[in-house]
Amino acid sequence: MDVADLGLPVDVPSTALFTDHYELTMLKAALAAGTAERRSVFEVFTRRLPEGRRYGVVAGTGRVLDAVENFRFDAGVLGFLRERGIVDEETLRWLAGYRFSGDIWGYPEGEVYFPGSPIMRVEGSFAECVLLETVILSILNHDSAVAAAASRMSSAADGRPLIEMGARRTHELAAVAAARAAYVGGFTTTSDLAAGFRYGIPTVGTSAHAFTLLHDRERDAFRAQVESMGRGTTLLVDTYDVTEAVRVAVEIAGPELGAVRIDSGDLLLVAHRVRQQLDELGATKTKIIVTSDLDEYAIASLRAAPVDAYGVGTQVVTGSGHPTCSMVYKLVARAESADPKAPLVPVAKKSTGGKTSIGGRKWAARRLDEHGVAEAEVIGTGPVPDALVDRQLLVELVKGGQVVAREPLDVVRDRHITARAALPLSATQLSRGEPVLPTEYV
Amino acid sequence: MDVADLGLPVDVPSTALFTDHYELTMLKAALAAGTAERRSVFEVFTRRLPEGRRYGVVAGTGRVLDAVENFRFDAGVLGFLRERGIVDEETLRWLAGYRFSGDIWGYPEGEVYFPGSPIMRVEGSFAECVLLETVILSILNHDSAVAAAASRMSSAADGRPLIEMGARRTHELAAVAAARAAYVGGFTTTSDLAAGFRYGIPTVGTSAHAFTLLHDRERDAFRAQVESMGRGTTLLVDTYDVTEAVRVAVEIAGPELGAVRIDSGDLLLVAHRVRQQLDELGATKTKIIVTSDLDEYAIASLRAAPVDAYGVGTQVVTGSGHPTCSMVYKLVARAESADPKAPLVPVAKKSTGGKTSIGGRKWAARRLDEHGVAEAEVIGTGPVPDALVDRQLLVELVKGGQVVAREPLDVVRDRHITARAALPLSATQLSRGEPVLPTEYV
Repeated sequence: MDVADLGLPVDVPSTALFTDHYELTMLKAALAAGTAERRSVFEVFTRRLPEGRRYGVVAGTGRVLDAVENFRFDAGVLGFLRERGIVDEETLRWLAGYRFSGDIWGYPEGEVYFPGSPIMRVEGSFAECVLLETVILSILNHDSAVAAAASRMSSAADGRPLIEMGARRTHELAAVAAARAAYVGGFTTTSDLAAGFRYGIPTVGTSAHAFTLLHDRERDAFRAQVESMGRGTTLLVDTYDVTEAVRVAVEIAGPELGAVRIDSGDLLLVAHRVRQQLDELGATKTKIIVTSDLDEYAIASLRAAPVDAYGVGTQVVTGSGHPTCSMVYKLVARAESADPKAPLVPVAKKSTGGKTSIGGRKWAARRLDEHGVAEAEVIGTGPVPDALVDRQLLVELVKGGQVVAREPLDVVRDRHITARAALPLSATQLSRGEPVLPTEYV
Repeated sequence: MDVADLGLPVDVPSTALFTDHYELTMLKAALAAGTAERRSVFEVFTRRLPEGRRYGVVAGTGRVLDAVENFRFDAGVLGFLRERGIVDEETLRWLAGYRFSGDIWGYPEGEVYFPGSPIMRVEGSFAECVLLETVILSILNHDSAVAAAASRMSSAADGRPLIEMGARRTHELAAVAAARAAYVGGFTTTSDLAAGFRYGIPTVGTSAHAFTLLHDRERDAFRAQVESMGRGTTLLVDTYDVTEAVRVAVEIAGPELGAVRIDSGDLLLVAHRVRQQLDELGATKTKIIVTSDLDEYAIASLRAAPVDAYGVGTQVVTGSGHPTCSMVYKLVARAESADPKAPLVPVAKKSTGGKTSIGGRKWAARRLDEHGVAEAEVIGTGPVPDALVDRQLLVELVKGGQVVAREPLDVVRDRHITARAALPLSATQLSRGEPVLPTEYV
């Protein structure tokens, strides 16, 4: 893969600098102490879901695989680390040869997760694993936050299409990942051209108020748009007076007008009025798209309204109140020595303060009840009970440094729909509550 | 500037695709209608501050200038637009020659702003300006949200250093911009190496719990770190028992130990106990750094504690509850015809629903009282009153397509400190309230 093809800030030539300073100083100290090569197991998990949420959605896994593959220290990066004195020459030599050679297992992308779920497990030497903490967490914490919000919105939309249009409300590259995560969570399309280009997500769009205001009369703007885009276009009808705009829109485009968009006002009320007016004008097939600061609650409240599609911006790209997950990357086991055959010892932080974790390399399985509905997230460190062997959640993603589980985004999106559908019905209630599955440790 | 030097997602070769689909379809329709060349004025402003906030902070301006300079449609981008049928051949030809040739004025980066402040003004043909909407808003909405949170935190820290360490809680490239914006808002350092590389921000870091857990005993980990990093290092003391860890830390590093880091528990209580213990051990100059889900309120609550520095993660990179601003990019004036000499007509959306705006190209000035304290944000479309001529806020950023106002980040950071200091004292109260300056329209 070409350097220009990564996802990089200016002058950063690989994913290797999406790393916290302390990962390199720990590496330096461990190399000097002879502990860097101890075989280690790190796990990504979250201690809790955002308050009131019923389930989480794993998203970003595919992006993590790209980032791990491109995590290399080239001359520019090494020069920076040397110049700043961040590590010593021995560490720089070690970094120059860095390629992740370990194994990664994880929940497949699109799966749901719960507190304690071992969403990703990274295994290799301490040195090679400790460096991946920040980039893995950045991707999973961001993308999963957006996908969780998107999933709630797509539940609330109950089959009506959802357009992601939040690029302007988040960092320009976070926007591309957000469009991808929203698609995983059930959105249909995006307004973001970069997301269409990079991930093949269908892009849509019509016009803004500026287009109407550019023209001498609203009528001129509508005519220009219909002549350019065809009668199937979506006309924005709330620049001046909605009723007059709808009348002019149908006059110009005829009853074949594709849709009208409403971007302000009391959407429930306005949608009913506009539907009635369109029907009276014979435009019975013209659709109504609404787009004004929608979140999952507003979407749900419009279920009874004659709305055909929702455009969602701010709230989906910012995770609807929870712009990040609280996923952490913790050492859960490591070898007694640098000998590759040394047995693994479970380890865990012990001090008080609510940040303790459970040591040991974990498996996870989702137990179903007699009707096939999920009833518990079961996590353990010992042998997997026979009844759960076929219900295990972790799959192999990277084997000996090689990515083995790339998949198309539509497969991920379908997986999410299936996983969500297997949860108890209360999972899709928007009201605040406990996680819909209990986490059981065995 | 090299293509590899932009801030790009995989396979996106310029900033031109950080654009919403509708900007291109509006362009296509306007080209066909003969209105694309009408001279136009777009303004970036926000109708309100996030609830309870007293002031906003302009950040991202420097990144906007880079993005505008690199906004070009190369063969790869044009091929994508053609293949998807997003625009027609005439529009593709127009895009192939795109270079922004207009003028941009704006509040200088680091300035404070209020509801209605014309933070940025973009002037040129409708066609060249309409395309910049999404990329400009993405950058300003994200960066200003982070800078506003950072500014409140740096007020609350009252001179104690603040370390930005939130990269793991946000998109990996948003993290780089967030570190930059936090620095503008008054942070001292960052943990994010990419931000150090790209923007020269000082990076810091020491060790994680994983480093302690890797070793057979906490004592071994401390010794390894001190041997590698020197006695001036910061030891993390809350993996097992804080009191024992502090004792061992001073035993190993001596009273020259640089600092201890506390990452969990009741920080106020623990900081007092650790300070007392350090002093009793003779380590009177060893500092205490705290880092556990801090926000501006937690920082303020620790003012009376013996804390020497704060590490802040999630809350700064997610804007402390407000991960985006509500900045919009609106057409406020346009020419009556495509004639370059045609007079400008003020335009504004008129429909109800709280989304109206004020037409006309605006100036802005900050009026001071007799003590030199800011007392109002004055905005107008007519001539600037004599008394305010010298207090005008907009500066020229791009002239005829050429960037004319690049500046070092330290200049921006100093400007913010100066601008904040000129606000009434209540600006730095953390409690919810109204904007600290009223916006007056003349």
